[in-house]
Parts: sequence; structure tokens; C-alpha cells
Amino acid sequence: METIYDVIIIGSGPAGLSAAVYAKRAQMDTLVIEKEPMSGGQIVYTYEVDNYLGIPGINGFDLGMKMREHADKFGAEFVTGEVQLIDASDKIKTVVLTDDTMYKTRTIVVATGAQSSRLGAEGEARLSGMGVSYCATCDGAFFRDKTVAVIGGGDTAVEDAIFLARGSKKVYVVHRRDEFRAAKVLQNKLLSLPNVEVIWNSTLEEISGEEKVGSISVKNVKDGKITAYDVDGVFIAVGSKPNSKIVEGIVECDGSGYIISGEDCVTSANGIFAAGDVRTKRLRQVITAAGDGACAISSVERYISEEF
Amino acid sequence: METIYDVIIIGSGPAGLSAAVYAKRAQMDTLVIEKEPMSGGQIVYTYEVDNYLGIPGINGFDLGMKMREHADKFGAEFVTGEVQLIDASDKIKTVVLTDDTMYKTRTIVVATGAQSSRLGAEGEARLSGMGVSYCATCDGAFFRDKTVAVIGGGDTAVEDAIFLARGSKKVYVVHRRDEFRAAKVLQNKLLSLPNVEVIWNSTLEEISGEEKVGSISVKNVKDGKITAYDVDGVFIAVGSKPNSKIVEGIVECDGSGYIISGEDCVTSANGIFAAGDVRTKRLRQVITAAGDGACAISSVERYISEEF
Repeated sequence: METIYDVIIIGSGPAGLSAAVYAKRAQMDTLVIEKEPMSGGQIVYTYEVDNYLGIPGINGFDLGMKMREHADKFGAEFVTGEVQLIDASDKIKTVVLTDDTMYKTRTIVVATGAQSSRLGAEGEARLSGMGVSYCATCDGAFFRDKTVAVIGGGDTAVEDAIFLARGSKKVYVVHRRDEFRAAKVLQNKLLSLPNVEVIWNSTLEEISGEEKVGSISVKNVKDGKITAYDVDGVFIAVGSKPNSKIVEGIVECDGSGYIISGEDCVTSANGIFAAGDVRTKRLRQVITAAGDGACAISSVERYISEEF
Repeated sequence: METIYDVIIIGSGPAGLSAAVYAKRAQMDTLVIEKEPMSGGQIVYTYEVDNYLGIPGINGFDLGMKMREHADKFGAEFVTGEVQLIDASDKIKTVVLTDDTMYKTRTIVVATGAQSSRLGAEGEARLSGMGVSYCATCDGAFFRDKTVAVIGGGDTAVEDAIFLARGSKKVYVVHRRDEFRAAKVLQNKLLSLPNVEVIWNSTLEEISGEEKVGSISVKNVKDGKITAYDVDGVFIAVGSKPNSKIVEGIVECDGSGYIISGEDCVTSANGIFAAGDVRTKRLRQVITAAGDGACAISSVERYISEEF
């Protein structure tokens, strides 16, 4: 007889792994589908995670391992593969991988995460994690009394700059236009800070440094002039993209592609839940993603009790 | 000059400690007020926590210590004391302890938690943590293939019983009335389960056992007859009470006293935020409380940027 899982969890970052722990402890038949043969999601490539309560100062790879071991302790089943298609037209849903393997399940938890947009500047990839960061909340504290640059002009960029200005010596904000898109009250706050300097009409050309960031080269888009600034860190805040393509047309998403869902992780589609960075939420952190995993399974339990 | 804190966090359970980590990493002047000279909140008295992702199978006291050490690492300031009064009439708020110490602050995070209601049955306190539990989601997995009793008749009791029936050999549900208050669809589900037996019109009189639970004595409220049942665990689900008295009349609470707030932890009162079990939410777990601490500070940051 074909297995019908109680829940298939897509993604093995903190949200997916926490969901796996909660699902297995609830004695559910659980399958986790992970794209890469390595659990942990985005944190795998993070040099240090220092704000996951109870585990201070840990390498992202090691934290991912600890989380995976926790799911393994309860015997969660993992498969490596990429989801090609979800068929949610029946009450028993089908998940098809790109190698055509098919799985049947009563519920699906989408925990596929999101990705910070890269600028593609020279040196950006090479120095990522060595001073180049995509998350001020996560990494700002490592730059106390140092000089940093924030790249971007939206809400996140301006909030990041205000946040960084509290502890850093100096914050440059590099923005390609001559005004911010951020909320006016935040702009005013930012411009009132003595240790913030906005570099208007400018784009980041290059990030330089041997083993860590040392300086940036910035190009004025009006006159083409290039200026170098000494900085210890670069925070790139030019948006992020959720990995929600596999549920396109199945669950409602917002304009940026995030799956619309409250903290109960319930989506517009019966039996499909969204946990972690992929759903609409204000704060995307390891700890909030792990919390989502628990909430999603709580909602899965209720759904299964009611529908099966 | 008198110190004005950026944030005063009331409570040092997982929500309060996570808030402290985030606040200190954001370089905020932070004070944590804890009622007892021991951090961790409710988990301090928990025999084993096995669902906090990344730290499997840890004693609650040890987990509380780890979390406290994490907050200490960033130099969070702690004071032991009980809050007598919050004066939120000015933009700079005042928190007064019962010994009349006064603190000034821009914002307050209420992370005072909640308490499961006790039945007061004979043996209940003595065997708490030794088979007596107030949280099926937390402790149910320890009773795989065992016999357990659930006490109560509301939504939580019925959901707990369904949850426990998935892994336990047998589940008794002891309810003092002849019908449940829970949602009809959940009741139907429960009554359809072959390994569930409801003991109607009955109250729990005594929980017996030497070092762990061995049996319960149940009294029929109609004829006064007492019957004993062999069980390995007792799950008491007769409600919980939030510790929200200190903000009575200051922030809006629901009928049970939980502070009304979404996952952004924003309350009805400017500059006052609620994190963890004390706020309205569906799932109260260590991991969701810790997530709240992060979200609350994110909202505090935004509030301070906008208002100060």
C-alpha cells in the first residue's frame, strides 16, 4: 500500500526542522524534502549566529547540524530533491520531485525560505560573511565602534542604518537616487543622526579587502566619479525574494511573492501551511522561523483532526 | 542624571531573555526585572524540554541557565523585584517595584508569562513533573505506548486527548460534566478514536504513585462512587491564567486576561509591548516565546525611531 504522509515539509531550514521535531513528537508520518543534502537553510553559509537564544556565538553550519540532529533524534525521514509540482486538487495532495518521484500527503508545510537579493558588485560574493552581510539585525552587533556602509534606500535600508548607527562609529548610506523610498518619519530620524552620512545618487561598484572588508568604491551616477570609503562592513539591503514558486497559483501570495499567512501559518489553501521566511511577516530571524515550525504543526494537527 | 532606559523587560522567561539578547545587540539601554532570582520562567520547574530546536533533551533548569548566560554575555542588566505599578501616562514611563524603587524607560516589554491552573487534587503537586503535566504538546511524547489520563472538557483538553491518542496505548478523559465544551468537530473526532475512553460526570480526587504516577482515583459526581484507574501520566487541561495584573487598565486584554497583541507584540498602549505566553496566541511554547522576544524588540526599535 502506498504511504500517505500526515505531513510533507518542504525545506530543511530552522522552520522546516522545527516543524519536523514537532510533527514527529506528535507521532505524525512525516517527510522532509530538502533541496540540498545539507540541513539548516540560509544559516549554513553564516559565519556566526549569535542571537538564537540559548546557543550563543555558533557557526551557522554547526547550528544547522545541531538542528538536524534534533530532527533525526525523533526519526524524521529526509529526502534530497527538488519539488517540481504540487497537486493540491484532491484532499490527499501529491508532491512530485524533478526526478518524477511522487509522494502523497494529507498536509504540506512550505518552509522554503527566502533569499536576500545580491547586488552583484565586484568582491561581494568573495567577502560575503567576511564583512559583507545581508542582515543588520543578525550581524550589526559584530561591528560595534566600527565604520559600516548600508546599500539601499527602502524601509529596510533606512531601518538598518538607524539600527547600526546606535553602535557603530560611522554609517554611510549609499543610495542610487536623490531621495529615500522609506517612511518619512524614519528618513527624518536617519538624517538627524550625527554619525550617519548619506551618499546620494550613487551605486556600489566594488568591495575591497583581503580576508575581510576594508573599503568600498562608490560611483556617482550623475558625473560617473568614483570615490573610495574605508569601511569594516557592508550591509546590503536591496530586498529579498521568497522561494515560493512551487506554490504559485495554489496559495495566495503578496506582491513580492511571500505566502500570505498569519502566525498560525495557515494559508489560503486547505491543508497547505507556510512557515519561516517564505511567509508574510515583519521579522525574519532563525528564532522566529523555528517558532513558526511549531505553530505550523499545531495548525496541521487541528486540520487533520477536523478533516480526516 | 537619572537613567532613562530604552526598554524595561518585565519577566525573565524565554520571551524576556530573548528580548534582552536582541535589545542588547541593538545597543539599547536595557533592564530586565525578574520576580525570582532565577531566570527561565516556567521551564525552570520542567523535568525535560525536548522540543526547543537545537537543544534536545535538556532539563528545564539547565535550559533556563543557558538562556540567562546568553543574555549575560551581552551585559543585560537584571534586577530581582516585583512590579507594583506602571505609570504609562507620560511618554517616559515609570516602573515602580514593591520596595518603591523607581525606573524610567522609553518602552516596556511585558513578558510575565502565564500559569497553568492547578486542580489541587491530592498528589498533584508532589508528582508534578513525575507524570503530572500541564502541557501535552510539551510532554506527550514521553508517554508513547503508555496509558494516560486527560483532565478537562474544553478545547485544549479535547485537542490534548486527540494528540495523545496518536502515540499512547490508551487515553482516559475525565470530565466533570456530561458533555464537552469543545468544538463539535473535535468532539466527534475524539469519540471516534478506539483507544479513548471518556469518564463523564467525574472529578479527579487523587493521583497516586511513589516516585512517579501509577494510578488516579476518580469520583462520580452523581453517585459519589470512587474508581481507580492505572495510568502512567496525567495531563491537566483546566485552563491557564496570564500574569497580566500589572498592566490591568493600561493595555487591552481579552476575557481571560491575555494581553491582546499580534505577532508584532504591539499592544493597545503606545510604547508597551507583550511577548510570550502573556499575550493572545494559539501556541504557547518555549520556542514561540523566544521568537516573540525578538519580534517585540524589533517593534520597540521602530517605536523608538519614530517617537524619540
